This record gives sequence, C-alpha cells and structure tokens, in this order.
Amino acid sequence: MVIVMEVGAAEEQIAAASNKLIELGFQVHRIDGVNQSILGAIGDKRGLNARQLEILPGVREIVEITKPYKLASREFKPDDTVIRLGGVSLGGRELVLMAGPCSVESEEQIETIAQLVAAQGGKILRGGAFKPRTSPYSFQGLGEDGLKLLRQAADAYGLLTITEVMDSSQVELVAQYADIFQIGARNMQNYSLLRAVGRSERPVLLKRGLAATIDEWLMAAEYILSEGNYQVILCERGIRTFSDYNRFTLDLGAIPVVKRLSHLPVIVDPSHAAGLRERVLPLARAAIAAGADGLIVETHNRPDEALSDGPQALLPEQLAQLSSELATIGRAVGRVFEAPVLSDVSPN
Amino acid sequence: MVIVMEVGAAEEQIAAASNKLIELGFQVHRIDGVNQSILGAIGDKRGLNARQLEILPGVREIVEITKPYKLASREFKPDDTVIRLGGVSLGGRELVLMAGPCSVESEEQIETIAQLVAAQGGKILRGGAFKPRTSPYSFQGLGEDGLKLLRQAADAYGLLTITEVMDSSQVELVAQYADIFQIGARNMQNYSLLRAVGRSERPVLLKRGLAATIDEWLMAAEYILSEGNYQVILCERGIRTFSDYNRFTLDLGAIPVVKRLSHLPVIVDPSHAAGLRERVLPLARAAIAAGADGLIVETHNRPDEALSDGPQALLPEQLAQLSSELATIGRAVGRVFEAPVLSDVSPN
Amino acid sequence: MVIVMEVGAAEEQIAAASNKLIELGFQVHRIDGVNQSILGAIGDKRGLNARQLEILPGVREIVEITKPYKLASREFKPDDTVIRLGGVSLGGRELVLMAGPCSVESEEQIETIAQLVAAQGGKILRGGAFKPRTSPYSFQGLGEDGLKLLRQAADAYGLLTITEVMDSSQVELVAQYADIFQIGARNMQNYSLLRAVGRSERPVLLKRGLAATIDEWLMAAEYILSEGNYQVILCERGIRTFSDYNRFTLDLGAIPVVKRLSHLPVIVDPSHAAGLRERVLPLARAAIAAGADGLIVETHNRPDEALSDGPQALLPEQLAQLSSELATIGRAVGRVFEAPVLSDVSPN
Amino acid sequence: MVIVMEVGAAEEQIAAASNKLIELGFQVHRIDGVNQSILGAIGDKRGLNARQLEILPGVREIVEITKPYKLASREFKPDDTVIRLGGVSLGGRELVLMAGPCSVESEEQIETIAQLVAAQGGKILRGGAFKPRTSPYSFQGLGEDGLKLLRQAADAYGLLTITEVMDSSQVELVAQYADIFQIGARNMQNYSLLRAVGRSERPVLLKRGLAATIDEWLMAAEYILSEGNYQVILCERGIRTFSDYNRFTLDLGAIPVVKRLSHLPVIVDPSHAAGLRERVLPLARAAIAAGADGLIVETHNRPDEALSDGPQALLPEQLAQLSSELATIGRAVGRVFEAPVLSDVSPN
Repeated sequence: MVIVMEVGAAEEQIAAASNKLIELGFQVHRIDGVNQSILGAIGDKRGLNARQLEILPGVREIVEITKPYKLASREFKPDDTVIRLGGVSLGGRELVLMAGPCSVESEEQIETIAQLVAAQGGKILRGGAFKPRTSPYSFQGLGEDGLKLLRQAADAYGLLTITEVMDSSQVELVAQYADIFQIGARNMQNYSLLRAVGRSERPVLLKRGLAATIDEWLMAAEYILSEGNYQVILCERGIRTFSDYNRFTLDLGAIPVVKRLSHLPVIVDPSHAAGLRERVLPLARAAIAAGADGLIVETHNRPDEALSDGPQALLPEQLAQLSSELATIGRAVGRVFEAPVLSDVSPN
Repeated sequence: MVIVMEVGAAEEQIAAASNKLIELGFQVHRIDGVNQSILGAIGDKRGLNARQLEILPGVREIVEITKPYKLASREFKPDDTVIRLGGVSLGGRELVLMAGPCSVESEEQIETIAQLVAAQGGKILRGGAFKPRTSPYSFQGLGEDGLKLLRQAADAYGLLTITEVMDSSQVELVAQYADIFQIGARNMQNYSLLRAVGRSERPVLLKRGLAATIDEWLMAAEYILSEGNYQVILCERGIRTFSDYNRFTLDLGAIPVVKRLSHLPVIVDPSHAAGLRERVLPLARAAIAAGADGLIVETHNRPDEALSDGPQALLPEQLAQLSSELATIGRAVGRVFEAPVLSDVSPN
Repeated sequence: MVIVMEVGAAEEQIAAASNKLIELGFQVHRIDGVNQSILGAIGDKRGLNARQLEILPGVREIVEITKPYKLASREFKPDDTVIRLGGVSLGGRELVLMAGPCSVESEEQIETIAQLVAAQGGKILRGGAFKPRTSPYSFQGLGEDGLKLLRQAADAYGLLTITEVMDSSQVELVAQYADIFQIGARNMQNYSLLRAVGRSERPVLLKRGLAATIDEWLMAAEYILSEGNYQVILCERGIRTFSDYNRFTLDLGAIPVVKRLSHLPVIVDPSHAAGLRERVLPLARAAIAAGADGLIVETHNRPDEALSDGPQALLPEQLAQLSSELATIGRAVGRVFEAPVLSDVSPN
Repeated sequence: MVIVMEVGAAEEQIAAASNKLIELGFQVHRIDGVNQSILGAIGDKRGLNARQLEILPGVREIVEITKPYKLASREFKPDDTVIRLGGVSLGGRELVLMAGPCSVESEEQIETIAQLVAAQGGKILRGGAFKPRTSPYSFQGLGEDGLKLLRQAADAYGLLTITEVMDSSQVELVAQYADIFQIGARNMQNYSLLRAVGRSERPVLLKRGLAATIDEWLMAAEYILSEGNYQVILCERGIRTFSDYNRFTLDLGAIPVVKRLSHLPVIVDPSHAAGLRERVLPLARAAIAAGADGLIVETHNRPDEALSDGPQALLPEQLAQLSSELATIGRAVGRVFEAPVLSDVSPN
C-alpha cells in the first residue's frame, strides 16, 4: 500500500500517518519527493479498509498494491484452470458451446432442442427452471419439473446440464439435476448464494453483474473459491452503459484483461447483450475472436412461441451457422471446435 | 402499445403484424403516415414480451405505452403513501432521519450511537448484523447477536430499528428484531428475497441497484407490493458511472421523477455515494433540497475504530450539524424536522 | 510516480525499470514488499506518458502521484479564485444567478426576458447567438444580430452578458458583445477553442463534457489558464449515464470534490440535465445546497413559442420562485443572494 | 410522432394537444385505449423539438417515429456506400487497413513506418500533425511540417493518407496533404468543423464521441452529408463506461446496429480503446469478426521512443500478425484482405 500525502502536509501529519500504519502492523518506508511525501507500507493485509487511512489529516490518497482477491489471481495459480467434466474440458484449447432455451417449457420442447444442440456440437444443455424475471407478472419457470425435464433431455443426447440457481435455499435441489450451476448477473453479489455454491462440488458459471468492475467480478469468484470450490467459470454478458439499441454493451475488451489477471476460464453470453437474434451471431463470432473459451447461447425450435426471451433465441439454422463459424474462426485463433457428423445424433 | 413499421414495409407485413396483435388479444388501429405505418394496439397485457413483436418482418420497433408496474404507479394510487410506524410518519411533511453505524459491533458501541441519534432527532436506528462485503475476508457482521444489541439499544432510546436482510432464509429471524427491513442495492433484483419480504408485514426500504433504471427500481418495488406488502420505501444511494473521486454518482434528479411516477416515499443514502464523511453533508443537504422524504446516514462514535465503512461515518458533531441543517433547509422547502431538546435524551 | 512490479518480477526486470526511470530524470527509491517490489520515482514530469513505463517487462502498473494539472489546482493557489466583473463577484459569499433564453430570437423577446432576469436579482444575461444543435435541420441562432440584441438588452437593464463561442474563428467577434465566454459541453476538449479563449481577457465559463472525468475537466481548464487567462468558471451540467427519464445525470457530488481540488468557482446548469422545466427547480435548489457558487438557467417569457429548448425554460413565475429559494437555501448554507425590490427594475 | 396522454387525462387536455398538433401542421389520429389515449401525428417535421409537446398538460410522453437523420439512413439509400479512392474501396468486400504512428515525428520515422505498413497490406497511412492532447504540456504535433512528411512517406510507398483536422480553420491546409480527413472523438459534435469538412471533397472518417449514442453519431454524420459530402466513414473507437482496466469500452455491438440503420461504411480503432498494445490484437480480431469494414491502428518502429501514445502502438511483428489474421478471420466471415508479397515493397 502507498500513502500519498498532500502537498504541504505538516511533518506531524506525516508522522501520525506513519505511526498509524505501524500500529496496523505494516513496515513503513518514507520517500520525500519534490512536492510531497509518500509512505510505502509493507505487509499483506487483505480485508483492511484503506479508506480509514485516507481520512487521516494530510493524507491525499491511498493506493492499494495488493489485489483484493487471492485464489482467483494468476499470481496464486499461474497456469490456466481447465475444468474437466464428463468428457468436456473448459479452459483448454477446446471451444465449448452451451446452448438451449431460455426456459424449459415442456418435454417435447426441451427434447427437440437438446437434439438440435447435440447435432451442432454443443456439449452442455442450458435451460431455466427458476427464472429471474424483471416483472412479477411474467412466466417464472417450471421449477423442479423443469429441472427433471432438462436432465432427461440432456441424458437422452449425451449432454451435460447447466441451469440457474437463484437462492441459497435452492442449491440442494438444483444440484440433483444440474452438472453446472449458473449464477445470474443480478445475483453476482448475492453473497449467501455465492457461499452456498462454494460449498458444493459442482462447477459454477458466474455471470458478470451489469455494473460490476472486473475487480468486483473476480472478488465474487473469490467468495466461491474461498469456500473450497475451485471450479469457477467466468461469463461476460454485457454491462449497462448509455449506448442505445442493444440491451447491454458486451465488454469484449474484458476478456484479455481477465485472462491476464486470473487463471479461470472465461466464456461469453452474446444473447442477452444483443437482445435480438440477428445481432447474436456477430457478437458470438467476435467473442471467440477476442479469446473466449466458449459461448452460452439461447436457441429454440419455435422461438415465436417461447414463453420467455424468444426474440433473442437463435433459430435452428442460425445455431448451425454458429457451429460452423466456431470451427473456422476458432481455427484462425488457434482453438478447436468439432461439430459431430449429423447422422451420429440420435437419442441414447 | 404502438408498433412502428419500417419505411417501405410491404402490405403483407403490415397485415401479418396486425394479425399477430389480434391473435394476442389486442384491438388494432392502423395509421398510415407520410413514410411509414404504425399500428396502435389496445389492451392491457402486462407481462407480454414486446420483443416477440419486434422481430416480425417489416417491424422497426415497439413502443410500450403501459408502464410495466401497476401497484407502484401513481396512476393506480394518486395520493402519496405515508407509512406510519410507532409515532413516525414517512412520506408526509415530516423529514425522517435514520442513522447509525454501518455494523453493530458491541453493546457499548450501539448504545452510545443510539443515544447520539436520538439526541439529534433521529427516529430510526440503523445497524448491520448481516453484512454484504465485497471481500470474503472482511468482517461479515455479528449475526443474531448484532440484531439483539440493535433492538436493545433502540428500545433504550425510544427508536425504531432498520437492518439489512440479505437472503430469504433470514427474513423470519430478522423480523424478530427489525421494524423495517432493508434490501441492499446488490439485492435489488434478488427476486426470492423480494417475494419473501413482500409476504411479511414489516415496511421495506428498497435501495436502488447500482445499475438500475428508474423503471427497474419500481418493478422491484412491484414484486414486494404484488405479494401484499404496500409499505415500501424507495432509497436512492448512487449509481455507477464513469465519474471519478466519488464511489457512486448520487442521482438526485431521480427524486422528482419517481415522485411523479409513484406514490411511494423516497429517501436518500448519501453515505455510500460519498464514501468519505467530508462529502456526506453537501449531498445530504442537496437530497433534502431536491425533495427527499428523509435520509439514512452512517454515524459512529469512534469511526477510526469502526470494523466497516468507518471513513464515511459522520462524526457526532457532524450528525449534530446535519440535524440542524435538516431543520433549516427543510423549512426552505416546506418540510418539518424537529431536533429534540438535548436534555430530554436519556435511556428509558 | 510509483511503479508497481508484478509479483515474482525478476531482479533484472526491476533493475531495468529502475534504470529507465533514472534515464528519464527521476530519482528512484526501491521498496521490497512481502510479495512484490515497488519503485518510488521522484521528480516532477508533467506531460510524461506513464504508459510507456507500464509496458516494461515485469511492471504491473504505474501510479501517478502528481496531478496532471497545475495552475488549476488548489496546491498551486490555496485561496478561492473570486472573479469580479462589473459589480458582480463570483466565487465568494455571493450566489450568482445567470439566466436568459436558450437562443436570442428577437429584440422584443430578449428585452422582455432581460427585464425578468433583472427583476429577480439575476446579474448576468445568457442567450445563444451561435447554437450547437444536434440536428443540422434545427434553428442555428441569429449569429451577430443575436449578439447585438443580447448586448443591447443587457445594457438596458444593467446586466452582464454570457454567450457561447463555438469555434476559435468566432472568438474575436463574440468578444465585442460578451462579458463572459461560454464553452459548451460538446466543446470541452476542443483545444483550439480553449487556447483561443485562453488568449483573451474575458472570463470563461467552461461546461463539463458529457463524459468528462473531473480530472479531464480540470485539464481543460488548465488549457485556458496556461495561456494566461486565470478567470475560469467551472460549470457542472450533467453527465451521460444509463439513468432514464432525465436527459443527463447531474453530478452534484462533483462540487465538493472540485472545490477541494481546485480554487476555481463552480456553478451549475440544472436546465440541460433536467430537460423539462418542472424538474429544474428541485435540481437548482439541490445545487445550491451542495455548495455551488451560482446557477445558469434558461428562462423565457413565452416558452411555448421558443425556437429552441422551450420545454426546459422556466416560466417567469418559476424564475421568481427560484430567486426566493436562492435567498432562503443560500442562507441555510451560509451564502447570500439578494433579490432587488421589484419597483427598482426599469430600463436604464 | 405518437403523443401518449396520461391515464385519466381530461377530454379538454386531449383536445388541446390535438389542436396543437394540427396547428404545427400534423394530421392527427386519435386512439382511445383501455386506460389512456394516444394521438398519432402524421407529417414529416424533422427539426421540431418534440419536448414542446411533452410539456402540455395531460401529456405523458412523446414517441418520435421518424429518425432525426435522413441522408445517413438506409431508408434514404438502401445500398451500402462504397468509397473508392486511389484503388482502395471501403465499404465493399475488401477489408481496409489504415495504420501508422500516433504522431508524425521525423522523416526517418514516418518513412520507416510507411514501409512497414505497405509491407503488411495497409493501404492508408495514418499519422497526426495536429494532436488533441489532454494536457497542454504534452507534445502537440509538428503541424504543417508533419503533414508534408506524411504525404511524402505515403507517396514513396504508394499509400493514401489520413490525418486529423482539429479546427475549421485548418481544413484548407490539411486538404493539401490528406486524402481522408479524420474527425476525432472529442470533436464529433464540433459543428463548425463538421460543416467545414462537409463542404470539402475529401472523404471524412468520423470517430464516435466518447459519450455519443448511435443516433447522435449518425446525426453528426448528417451534418457532413447535409453539406453535400457523401463520403463519410464511421469509426467506432470505444465509449466511456465504468469498466476498469481498459481506457474505453469498445462497443462492437454497435456495428451490426449501424450497418442496419445506415449505408455508411464502419471501421474500428482498437488502439485507443485498448490503451496497451497487448490488448489491441484481440480487439482487432473481434472487430473484423463483428463485421467491421476495416481497421485503423497505431504502429511504430520504435514505440518506446514515440512522442505520443507509444504504449498502444503495435510492434512491427504484431502488425504482421494482424495482417495475417485479417486474411484468415476475414475469410471466415466472407471478406477479403490481401497482404502483398514482401519483396514487392520498396520505395517508388
């Protein structure tokens, strides 16, 4: 930590700040510059609130050197985390496609979509059973019935499942059906929930909050990691800005930054940022080009009849196009995506 | 709802959009303009996803006329909601001051602060027992012990209590000690929690999310109201923007807007936006001048030793200044705040 | 400047960074912490691009200690700048009201409004002659004719004038009629223009850009100051955020920050942020409560017929209310505003 | 335009609004819904300030149907604009690479870089002679000498030139040396400048402002087009958001939106958004994948010695990598980029 004193801070103020640091357990080094002094404080005090130093008389600002997260940092674990799960590896050379409907609506719907997803090389079936909806008057999901249908459809086509868990009280139930927990953007700082999934043994896909800085996103990951669950997948899904037309602004520049700061895999959800299916493919392509380890997209066999978020669901032919582009753009950036031969896909 | 067709949309496209609307239960009025046609759709379909119309061929955009919230709207309830609780009325002419420490830390601490708050005309004692902290390594609150101490200190000085509830599983416990539930900004769209407090009979203070639009904030209130709890207090606490130096940008312009859209009381939390105590008072004054019904501020008898957010806690003398300014600025804008005669304040 | 090395940076990398600093003319102090080393670089090198150090191998980040502006800083000039001009002083105890129409439209219009402004204690008449309009098809102002009418109306009622200068080529012309130059938000970083008004002897009101950080705003002021013109008035007018309903988010929290960083006076324009007149008064009140040195507002005798921005222009009775509130709220925060006795106002 | 009345608006208010519209020259169609009435106003009134209707009693909001820009819209010109200039075509199938240093610094520097650019298939040499710098104390460019050196280096290697024009007074001078004018992000709404380049015959690259919505960006283009210059190239370069680590957030989602709204070509500047060269390549790749028509990047032969923005300049080997990726990713999205055979590049 570096304490920057005001220009013209009195000698006693500098001494008082220095003493406060020593009292807190730091070693202090003082440097007197042309116009002002700074104090270098040595010691690893994660969790200390630096603002308590900032308000000392004569102190202009505090600069924290140590990142607030530890387990999520590349300094702690220099090698990429690769999450291996039922034949899929996430965070390595392979590009992973997660796809499915916004909500599980019926057995026929989720089975049909599972087949589509498997046919295009998707490995993980997404589908909501508990839905966080902006309006209390909107469809809220099928609950446990939805979870059962999701599991059954995934099993029929050799897929893994991912679904959102909205509340710590749901963790146990969802764990019976899901291979991967999804934490939604609006729950990124629901600490009770983060701790609860941190105590489970399932991988967790952690969506970035609408207004979360990169540091806050990694701190939310740290909550999960600090409970002993090291299988965290970060997911960029767009941030809130003033920019019009799109629902959210996809922050693809965050990918190379996070890849440098952390060892965790990063995937992208282009569907929610785009909001309309015609804009999903350009963003999906761009995400892979920017270095994402995979995608999670919404798709639907009859999007016009979807009970939620139909307009952003890819049509079956668009999912096929995406699959093909994952292969070609992936190759251009040194990654691998293999679409299966179509005739191979039939229910187990 | 108004459906705006593209310039040059084909006659069949206009007919198809019109038929889709009729199928959804709307009455349709068509207006042909100079360059393009629009369809006026009559019918109240809260919960319908308008984007499913936006993707029809030839449709340029959908304009929703009906607000997505109903119970929170002034159209539903034209008169101001005034929440009356133990002699305090919130949302009327009276300005209400809620104050206390960020976290309850000890019996001595919360008792001392309760006395300070009562002495300055505060009516409601705030204090966190379950703390949402960005870092898992920071102090997380005293839990139920904290709730007990808060209740006891408030009772001793004739104050009401407000404290944060972070998870739906805590609602029952917190209800035993708190007069008002606080929902934090990071939980504004934690729908399980909103529903849970909506089923209780306690008033709920709902902080605006860091990235929440005004409509989303009112929709979150609607979740609580739709469960039957009509005692919702809105709280502006700053939004996330690019602006530097302050932690958040206090959006005081939201106050006259919300007052026009909704009948619910609105208070302001200047402490979290400012981050440093020297900037709290100017924002507190400005909030009252802009029309807020009250304030919730952090204060501490020994802020340098506070276990959380000490730097933004007002010093006792600053709380006294705030109390005096509430009276004078309140008077200038037609509101009332009465600081008690100091000698009156002693434990019950 | 502080150079923070990566955790695990090699000894040679630290040495190389240190040598680079010495080569650039700094004195270097090295501090070895628990996990990483930092280098304190002493020397005042305003204008150096710190990112050229950030890209050195083993360097994690650069922390600049010296603020990039000098003349605008309170460190350079500890006392408040008070601008005195024809009996008005801006930046002292007095609150200053600048008011007038968005655009000068006709002799009758500007004369009528000048009388209104003078009657309410306004000292400075605003009115645009060259208008920056988002659309090329909107009214662009009367040009020099507008300047003449503004001057004449101001003189008739003993007012000073302020008007926008949009381009360096207009500076000479505008200087013939205006007492204060206004630089619009969209031109805050039009450096040719900043230099041009910096070479004039007129005070300059510098509006904050829609997306300008506080540091960038002060740097724009520095451009003017560095040319020798020390009479700069800062004007907060709202920043662009995601928040809906208002056109811009007025950042009142910036006022105490700027007041601490700089000696320059700060006023607020509530009209453009609000966009609609019914929201101007709450923001105007809040601005004074937050510590602004004055206001610049739009007003019009017949706003429904205004050629530009009529909806945000205060009605005459609203201007009167504002005048009265400036006095009462001003008093509550230790400032002075005196509305003249109405009978005093007649053309000179 | 659609006028939405308040719920419960009085019959006279509806009539008054209707009459006002008729007075303004609109034809009016009234639709009475379940809860409220709306008025459809027919007539093309670009330039009308809709807020003057919004303030009528009983009016809740105004929805504008007609886009404020005309010449920039795809409705006006359905086919893509392809700008052809000295053998280069921008906006067609070809991907165009513009590259060069931030500032022209010396004959040797710009000649060396011109050779690098030509060798990698770049067709347009960029280089600043008049530099908009945040600090008045930073290097401001070589002025006309820089323009001459840029021209000479470009000619030697068969390249076109692009350079920034900062002020309307510079247009004539810069036109003598530049094939394409660049308007910087901070000048996007410098209307005097937009009009001036609109009257020239050179193509204009218009960077998006830091806080510009897509509609405002297209309106700025409209200023140029409305003066008769139809050769406008839009350039996305990152917007200002709260997101940390990168200097700006590149809004790649804007590309498919703008491509649908407008016929103008769109290129991307990944250098300024990234700020550091290691993050430029991922964003450059992503831009092409998202549908950009080309890139403008900074490159330098000795970036460590660059007088401005060296840290974001690509190293020669990175420019070569970019060239190769333009070809492979371009192919994956149906575009063409051809890097010349290296031995072909020697001064003319």
